[in-house]
Amino acid sequence: MKILGIDPGIGICGFGLIETNSRAGAKALDYGVVRTTVDAPIPSRLKELYDSLVQVFDECKPEIVAVEKLFFSKNITTGIVVAEARGIVLLVAEQKNIPVYEYTPNQIKMSLTGYGAAKKAQIEEMVRVHLGLETKPKPDDAADALAVAITCSFLYHLGNKEKYKFANNRKEDDDSSY
Amino acid sequence: MKILGIDPGIGICGFGLIETNSRAGAKALDYGVVRTTVDAPIPSRLKELYDSLVQVFDECKPEIVAVEKLFFSKNITTGIVVAEARGIVLLVAEQKNIPVYEYTPNQIKMSLTGYGAAKKAQIEEMVRVHLGLETKPKPDDAADALAVAITCSFLYHLGNKEKYKFANNRKEDDDSSY
Repeated sequence: MKILGIDPGIGICGFGLIETNSRAGAKALDYGVVRTTVDAPIPSRLKELYDSLVQVFDECKPEIVAVEKLFFSKNITTGIVVAEARGIVLLVAEQKNIPVYEYTPNQIKMSLTGYGAAKKAQIEEMVRVHLGLETKPKPDDAADALAVAITCSFLYHLGNKEKYKFANNRKEDDDSSY
Repeated sequence: MKILGIDPGIGICGFGLIETNSRAGAKALDYGVVRTTVDAPIPSRLKELYDSLVQVFDECKPEIVAVEKLFFSKNITTGIVVAEARGIVLLVAEQKNIPVYEYTPNQIKMSLTGYGAAKKAQIEEMVRVHLGLETKPKPDDAADALAVAITCSFLYHLGNKEKYKFANNRKEDDDSSY
């Protein structure tokens, strides 16, 4: 099964495609980042992101897309534009008719290291180990994308096929006032 | 000049098209809301929104698009999905090659009422007055969209054509780490 992990961002958006047949093994088929023009207005960068992601999806032909759930604890203003970029990721997945699974940062850390407060370097090391790579995948955004793809492969094969599937599980969505 | 105001949202997205030739006068050509399926997953709703907005843009043929700047003071979790929806709005505008102008809630209130802390009812009343309507436009999301379109017409005709144009004026965008 081909899983495409995506780490949404407006400046750099990481992607990582893995092939997995069981919990035991996964290999990296492709990974990298999509960059947008730093000085361009946001709408223009969102379109650049859209166009590049369409290409990534067409080349990768994933069966599943995995993305991290967003939390805005650190920088709310930065978070707005990351969420705008994430909207583009979800749109492209839907347009390509690929199911989207989402995982919290904690689930990703737990899946890869068994420790919910694991540091970035530890995650990256486990991405390297799980995919049998000689060195840590670079840049960080690609490693993050591979991490969410690996998390998806673990939890998917553990039988929770529907549990993490992107559903309308945010209660506030039922409030039609926004 | 035809200005399309948009009030982004995942459940309801308001739009309002006005025609304006000077600061003195503006009239409403069309307004309404786009709704998405409440029980559907977010990626599916974002695609519904995208498809509907493409149709709105094709029918309205705006020369300018005006949207409100997002602030996440009230509900950060709700804010994420609103920002995802806003990303779709900006994408469609860019795909249609329409320039986007953005305004803070304070600028909208000041433009319409002269008072930055004006209540919603007062804004809606001034939307009615400015557009020469017999009753307040409904639903609220359509009125909000008309309000940002009127704000755009005021500030645009005041000679600040470039001032509010969507530019990469968020300093944190220069940080390529996200």
